[in-house]
Amino acid sequence: MNQMMANGTQTHTLSALVANKPGVLARIAQVFARRGFNIDSLVVSPTRDGNFSRMTMTALGDPSGLDQIIKQVNKLVDVIHCSDLTDQNIVVKELMLIKMRIEAELRTEVLQVAEHFGARSVDLTDESLTMMITGNSDKLDAYVELCKKYNIIELVRTGKVVMARGPKET
Amino acid sequence: MNQMMANGTQTHTLSALVANKPGVLARIAQVFARRGFNIDSLVVSPTRDGNFSRMTMTALGDPSGLDQIIKQVNKLVDVIHCSDLTDQNIVVKELMLIKMRIEAELRTEVLQVAEHFGARSVDLTDESLTMMITGNSDKLDAYVELCKKYNIIELVRTGKVVMARGPKET
Repeated sequence: MNQMMANGTQTHTLSALVANKPGVLARIAQVFARRGFNIDSLVVSPTRDGNFSRMTMTALGDPSGLDQIIKQVNKLVDVIHCSDLTDQNIVVKELMLIKMRIEAELRTEVLQVAEHFGARSVDLTDESLTMMITGNSDKLDAYVELCKKYNIIELVRTGKVVMARGPKET
Repeated sequence: MNQMMANGTQTHTLSALVANKPGVLARIAQVFARRGFNIDSLVVSPTRDGNFSRMTMTALGDPSGLDQIIKQVNKLVDVIHCSDLTDQNIVVKELMLIKMRIEAELRTEVLQVAEHFGARSVDLTDESLTMMITGNSDKLDAYVELCKKYNIIELVRTGKVVMARGPKET
């Protein structure tokens, strides 16, 4: 699941708990931008009580640079905590919608592949098929790879959400 | 799916296509923050070719204020387009992980409820159970409501991703 590059940089998965207020996201994004780090995927959604938001980010970069970013983010007002969950014992899931141009005669073949991946159709027309699939990023990548031989109209992924295995909080 | 408030404000679903570069997210978040709008949920992930990112945001606010924000976002460098998809003919999906403190004797009951919702277990210990569920926001809300009688340890949602129905691009 972790992409390891020749120069030692790696895809990192960060999790943060922040106050659900205007401006928090802008300040966090600024910390990354100032250091020239691109946030690859980002998921922000309110926690159960609505006062806080959970952010899950993936970023590719050298570990020492990311350490600095995490330290800075932890000092921001309205950030409760931020940590690197890479290599932790976590469940990682992602959702993808993928729309393909599929004529009726190819439909059976496409649905067979889908079944193997546990993907299911969420929209169907005479010329198109939209599938929903969930799983870890590797599985989604593999499914996209197989769909490439059809005509992919568009796809959208949620980015990763993570949760610690076992009874403890993440 | 759209929360309509007494004063006419409504939860809006916005979609944007942006260049996959550092700083873009910070600038967009700034536009919302300056106008005091809180982004409720946000999903950012790279498109297929990796040069662009798709952003899906939900925000609660008066429509005229949001119109202004969309206009401003559309003027930003590195923003290809941004539009309001509320009330469009779209597929809306979300993923949630929910961890509950469940002793063995309650497990059957919890799994029965899960089956009804199409949720499935992704982590299991003697004291806890983590379920994954996908669907529209109403379905996820209903599932959380039912899980409240158990001891919810934590939950995380991806926020919405959207795709236009039919063969056309969103």
